[in-house]
Amino acid sequence: MLGLMQNQQLLISSLIEFAERHHGNGEIVSRRVEGDIHRYTYKDAGQRARQVANALDGLNLAFSDRVATLAWNGYRHLELYFGVSGSGRVLHTLNPRLHPDQIVWIANHAEDSVLCFDMSFLPIVKAVHGRCTTIKHFVALCDANKLPVDSEIPGLISYEAWIGAQSSNYQWPSFDENSASSMCYTSGTTGNPKAALFSHRSTLLHALASALPDALNMSARDTVLPVVPMFHVNAWGLPYSAAMTGAKLVFPGPAMDGKSIFELIESEKVNFAAGVPTIWQMMLSHVQAGGLRFSTLKRTVIGGSACPPAMITAFNDDYGVEVLHAWGMTEMSPLGTVCSLKNKHLTMSSDEKMKIRLKQGRGIFGVDMKIVDGAGEELPWDGKTYGDLLVKGPWVISDYFKGEGGSPLVEGWFPTGDVATINADGYMQITDRSKDVIKSGGEWISSIDVENIAMAHPAVAMAACVGMKDPKWDERPIIVVVKKPGSTVSRNELIKFYDGKTAKWQIPDDVVFVDAIPLGATGKMQKSKLREMLKDYKFREPEDATESHG
Amino acid sequence: MLGLMQNQQLLISSLIEFAERHHGNGEIVSRRVEGDIHRYTYKDAGQRARQVANALDGLNLAFSDRVATLAWNGYRHLELYFGVSGSGRVLHTLNPRLHPDQIVWIANHAEDSVLCFDMSFLPIVKAVHGRCTTIKHFVALCDANKLPVDSEIPGLISYEAWIGAQSSNYQWPSFDENSASSMCYTSGTTGNPKAALFSHRSTLLHALASALPDALNMSARDTVLPVVPMFHVNAWGLPYSAAMTGAKLVFPGPAMDGKSIFELIESEKVNFAAGVPTIWQMMLSHVQAGGLRFSTLKRTVIGGSACPPAMITAFNDDYGVEVLHAWGMTEMSPLGTVCSLKNKHLTMSSDEKMKIRLKQGRGIFGVDMKIVDGAGEELPWDGKTYGDLLVKGPWVISDYFKGEGGSPLVEGWFPTGDVATINADGYMQITDRSKDVIKSGGEWISSIDVENIAMAHPAVAMAACVGMKDPKWDERPIIVVVKKPGSTVSRNELIKFYDGKTAKWQIPDDVVFVDAIPLGATGKMQKSKLREMLKDYKFREPEDATESHG
Repeated sequence: MLGLMQNQQLLISSLIEFAERHHGNGEIVSRRVEGDIHRYTYKDAGQRARQVANALDGLNLAFSDRVATLAWNGYRHLELYFGVSGSGRVLHTLNPRLHPDQIVWIANHAEDSVLCFDMSFLPIVKAVHGRCTTIKHFVALCDANKLPVDSEIPGLISYEAWIGAQSSNYQWPSFDENSASSMCYTSGTTGNPKAALFSHRSTLLHALASALPDALNMSARDTVLPVVPMFHVNAWGLPYSAAMTGAKLVFPGPAMDGKSIFELIESEKVNFAAGVPTIWQMMLSHVQAGGLRFSTLKRTVIGGSACPPAMITAFNDDYGVEVLHAWGMTEMSPLGTVCSLKNKHLTMSSDEKMKIRLKQGRGIFGVDMKIVDGAGEELPWDGKTYGDLLVKGPWVISDYFKGEGGSPLVEGWFPTGDVATINADGYMQITDRSKDVIKSGGEWISSIDVENIAMAHPAVAMAACVGMKDPKWDERPIIVVVKKPGSTVSRNELIKFYDGKTAKWQIPDDVVFVDAIPLGATGKMQKSKLREMLKDYKFREPEDATESHG
Repeated sequence: MLGLMQNQQLLISSLIEFAERHHGNGEIVSRRVEGDIHRYTYKDAGQRARQVANALDGLNLAFSDRVATLAWNGYRHLELYFGVSGSGRVLHTLNPRLHPDQIVWIANHAEDSVLCFDMSFLPIVKAVHGRCTTIKHFVALCDANKLPVDSEIPGLISYEAWIGAQSSNYQWPSFDENSASSMCYTSGTTGNPKAALFSHRSTLLHALASALPDALNMSARDTVLPVVPMFHVNAWGLPYSAAMTGAKLVFPGPAMDGKSIFELIESEKVNFAAGVPTIWQMMLSHVQAGGLRFSTLKRTVIGGSACPPAMITAFNDDYGVEVLHAWGMTEMSPLGTVCSLKNKHLTMSSDEKMKIRLKQGRGIFGVDMKIVDGAGEELPWDGKTYGDLLVKGPWVISDYFKGEGGSPLVEGWFPTGDVATINADGYMQITDRSKDVIKSGGEWISSIDVENIAMAHPAVAMAACVGMKDPKWDERPIIVVVKKPGSTVSRNELIKFYDGKTAKWQIPDDVVFVDAIPLGATGKMQKSKLREMLKDYKFREPEDATESHG
């Protein structure tokens, strides 16, 4: 027997419709590529999203046709989020930090029909347009009078002229909530890039669960700054959850430096910001250097890669900003865990709380997880036993687009490629990426643990631990370090710094100082490239005893 | 093109599975019918819910068979919530405050197969069992040794013996999320009672949306006391949203008096409680009389009927407890609006904030609403224009069980029977029930407004405004008042009390003092009964000028 409740599909259009109707005056503020600050409301965004939908109809785009973007976080990108998906097309957010050859490969693989791009990315589009065989329409996200006349891009049109010619009357269509809504390619380390193909249903459920008090805790009282790019797993879903809750949205545009982000936080009274550790490190450096204070910022969500403890401490202790450690993957829409406290933790000392905050957090409702051993057997949640982390849930992928790479699931679970522990309260902690774990003398050494100790040294700006082949121990860790400008630290001083902070056999055997550690398109350290850089590395004679196990 | 996300049905079993796994140590505390305090964890609840499921299988109950309860808020009732719905049967929460004849009618209409009841309700079950033609199994929610030997109820079994004989190994089945999960009959004022038939999908979506920061704001840091009965629209969904968030649950059992509730709040460190105004009035009286303070309570959700301003003020100003005004209906699962503030309100004076708090609130995501005039035309959201309130959303009914009463929808919208205004920020305020509005000289008078003024008088415990036929004005309001024990107020004093608080023509023409105002099974004033009581009422000679309009 079926229930007798209204049949209403979970559609992305319902988010902007709700925001327009219930939060029509809610503000959306964007720093533009043009340099100025643009402000308008959810009502304006809704009207222009409907113009986008009409404009796409005007191009005779079919249901599920892909519309690609190469764009910063801003109001026009937001309109495309709702106009493209809401009208039944698939939003494909291209990552502009990829190599042009990769962009070409991805756009062709996705079979994009339209490409909308910020003017910052005109050089990329000039370089790739001739090779993107499926793109029929190029749209520059600018006013008609800013359109370059000599771009050589065939039929290039300005976004403002394009949507300006359209009516804002549009009835959002209803269709199966399992229809594809958007897609995002992962920066896979092996093989070709693979795309997660999100659905309206998965996006709505993710938005609901991610806005819960135990997750991102979003309400109509928040002013949210998504520093995480809208081309990076839909800015962790923030454009959707903001519309769902009527939160004020503040977009940084192309100005992603510490100073610009700080100024935007202060001028727009942002209380909640989200981004990857590298961005926060830049901002923290800016704030520390200038002796500045945050007057409204209350919490930051940090994800994308593990957050160094020193950063959490600095935000918490020096600036009164709560750091929410979060973890997820493109394949998870992306949120899997957020490290919010439970009732029992509230009376703990701040040191004890910090131990919890360092973990990646608890599964948000909808996501289940488990850790397994090499044979696939589930391991206990004791906070010590580590194993391969698997997840499942309604916003976790079942397959990659076009079946690329074969079925990723193992008996219904998605293997994350992370190694983790889970404690009795359900708090998960990544100990490493499976491929980065250092296997030394039959024991595992977490590269992240080794990095975090180095990161706590005042002279260290960035640190990467990699395993080097060793005839005796199989692998031994070395630490690759970028020094802070003007700081000095010697190899021996840094090795000494590990004393008492970890087991002797986990202390790296060597320090390699470099000018820069290669970062991927999403700001993560690229250890595969680092290993390539170090392919001629040879262990030097140890200057003190760090070899013995135990 | 469909998205490529995991197909996972939204099922009630996923709530208890999640709670067991991620909040296994989370506490559930119940004051029992036996009088003592019972404590256990979500892990225990999950295990026993699986025993319930096995026990139902043992009775050969089919998918969608109805299992009825006559029970207070407590852990055994909670286990039935998950065991019955989770295993694919339909939980039917009977209202024990109904007349036995109504219970018989409803149980037969629902075709209940099993009835599980708290021992408090043994007299009711004794009175009705012979006439409940479909119930094959009677289960007393007690230990085997507490089972009455002379109940005359055929085959009566004890819950503990029944589920104790079952294994806790049980794999929750997967099925269509649109399947019926539970049902609740409304205390309709006309015709036969009608049932809302909830689905797993509607229940899960309601739990997600109702736990959002702008709604009930529930997290693993909360200790929640649902005073609102579990037989009253599933205690506003709190058992579901608590399991979803891992909040500590505290159940009051049968002890619903102010003293018992207050003691439970204090002893279990409750920070969040939910109930109807009459319950809070009792507790407030207890607290005020004893000069007591709340040491942990931070917020209460008050719904079920409009909350008198004096109560909101008392909680806020005297006790630092935030009152969240909420509104909904059985037909809405039940939550429709919650009065949480927006960013723009935070800097307002407390007087200005109070004006907003008096409204029923904003639509939670998923619920849309509109007000219409007599011709069904949508009216503006200006905070002044009032009209019939209609709602829609995935947890609003499409039909009543068995099609009772015909299709309730008007072009896809459910007419609530309330008259309301909505302001530009989306805040809805009920001005009256359509049938309670007093039509005086072509103008409408809100019975609620008239009552709220009387309730602010220190001698008034309860007040009901009803319209009386009047040859000149069509209808004129009178106010029916229950005085506080030991307090005195005269008719003229109370009429005078209205001076300056409302337009002269809205001041009631008379005051009728009574010992009690009839309350319905859910604690709401029953104006239909009141009108019956007053059927011989005649307007007395006015003692001062309250007749003139304008």
